[in-house]
Amino acid sequence: MKTLTIVKIGGNVIDNEKSLKKFISDFSKLKGLKMLVHGGGKLATQLSEKLGIEIKMIEGRRITYSETLKITTMVYAGWINKTLTARLNSKKMKAIGLCGADLFLIPSEKRKKTKIDYGFVGDVLINKINTKNLALFLNNNIVPVMAPITSNAKGQLFNTNADTIASSLAIALSKKYKTKLIYCFEKNGVLANDKVIKTMNSNQYKILKQNKIINNGMIPKLDNAFSALENGVKEIIIGNSSQLNKQNAGTRIIYN
Amino acid sequence: MKTLTIVKIGGNVIDNEKSLKKFISDFSKLKGLKMLVHGGGKLATQLSEKLGIEIKMIEGRRITYSETLKITTMVYAGWINKTLTARLNSKKMKAIGLCGADLFLIPSEKRKKTKIDYGFVGDVLINKINTKNLALFLNNNIVPVMAPITSNAKGQLFNTNADTIASSLAIALSKKYKTKLIYCFEKNGVLANDKVIKTMNSNQYKILKQNKIINNGMIPKLDNAFSALENGVKEIIIGNSSQLNKQNAGTRIIYN
Repeated sequence: MKTLTIVKIGGNVIDNEKSLKKFISDFSKLKGLKMLVHGGGKLATQLSEKLGIEIKMIEGRRITYSETLKITTMVYAGWINKTLTARLNSKKMKAIGLCGADLFLIPSEKRKKTKIDYGFVGDVLINKINTKNLALFLNNNIVPVMAPITSNAKGQLFNTNADTIASSLAIALSKKYKTKLIYCFEKNGVLANDKVIKTMNSNQYKILKQNKIINNGMIPKLDNAFSALENGVKEIIIGNSSQLNKQNAGTRIIYN
Repeated sequence: MKTLTIVKIGGNVIDNEKSLKKFISDFSKLKGLKMLVHGGGKLATQLSEKLGIEIKMIEGRRITYSETLKITTMVYAGWINKTLTARLNSKKMKAIGLCGADLFLIPSEKRKKTKIDYGFVGDVLINKINTKNLALFLNNNIVPVMAPITSNAKGQLFNTNADTIASSLAIALSKKYKTKLIYCFEKNGVLANDKVIKTMNSNQYKILKQNKIINNGMIPKLDNAFSALENGVKEIIIGNSSQLNKQNAGTRIIYN
């Protein structure tokens, strides 16, 4: 089985030329089959504000109306995705900028309305991920660069959480590859009392959560990470994008 | 040699749900290998206006500053491209939304500054088109949907004329496929005195131009069409997107 490395970054990497340049260089040096998943960053919010489109949050979560969907599709699948792809290709890679709607790679469904209607937000149908076409790319040394937009069978586009896309792809592709998942964010790893936790298993995670030592914002990321570990992903690291090639950087998610 | 049909449409097809629906249905019914190239339409102009970004035209041509490039990349490679792709896939096609920067499919260079500096506008390097990766898709029954954005070897994105992209792809791929090129626009074909010209060869084109019977706006499209004919493309039709499946519709570009 070949090894596949999936790296997830925030969209903010492209906001700054210096960090973009460093990331492109670091990512291009990763050996073996690889894939990049990027988030949205602040650009979509800035554009919404400039256009006077109200950003509605309910219980800390963004509601995606049709105008917001248009903006996120433009910013994520257009500007961020193609900027990253063109820059990666300038390093002699074979990068292809895609989203979940392309080749119906990541079939999704509209998030069910509970007490909140999230609007055009997609939940990934992990068992339906089109691993066949993803493998066609990977086996031709093509590097997919994935924007966090998906679609359903009717051709409706959805905003979709980039961390979830990364873990879902890693899980689905773990049947074909030995899969490594690297979550990059602005911190050097998961912190406890300002220090990076070097390794974490689910028992430790439970205790850290119970004692409220882990930042609330980290919880969805860690839930995704443990779900990936339990579903076939071989290695999961949470760290800083600037330390992509540094040995033993970040927090390693491990079995109990 | 297999037949490949390349259809070029304006971005305005997606402005209207009825015309979009009809086009998606018509295009999905085309037999054999196929590819779609789309333009930008009015959406980029509308967005620029809303954002208060000045649209500068010199001698009828748009100048692409960095803010304009960002907007066109967002609108063309983001919203229009992914909307078309998701809708095509809802018809059980295997469509993939791309631009020229992906896999460096359409290498381009910045248009040379003459008396006008067009800004971030790309001219296609037709002999460097990545036909190998395009053929990988086509031979797997994948339908590329191409947005009019390209890049150079340094990873700089460019705005690029969609008609030229369509003819350049048709020419480059005519070495591997029997290529048919269909230019769609709002008229039913090239008009002379309000009637569709059924066939046109380059001698007739010359005379029609000299006598100013052909609308000025048609000239770049026709120049592209005759260039395609002279460079290996087997069949070229200029017509209305609503008549995609109608026999003998539009204007057929033929040899003298």
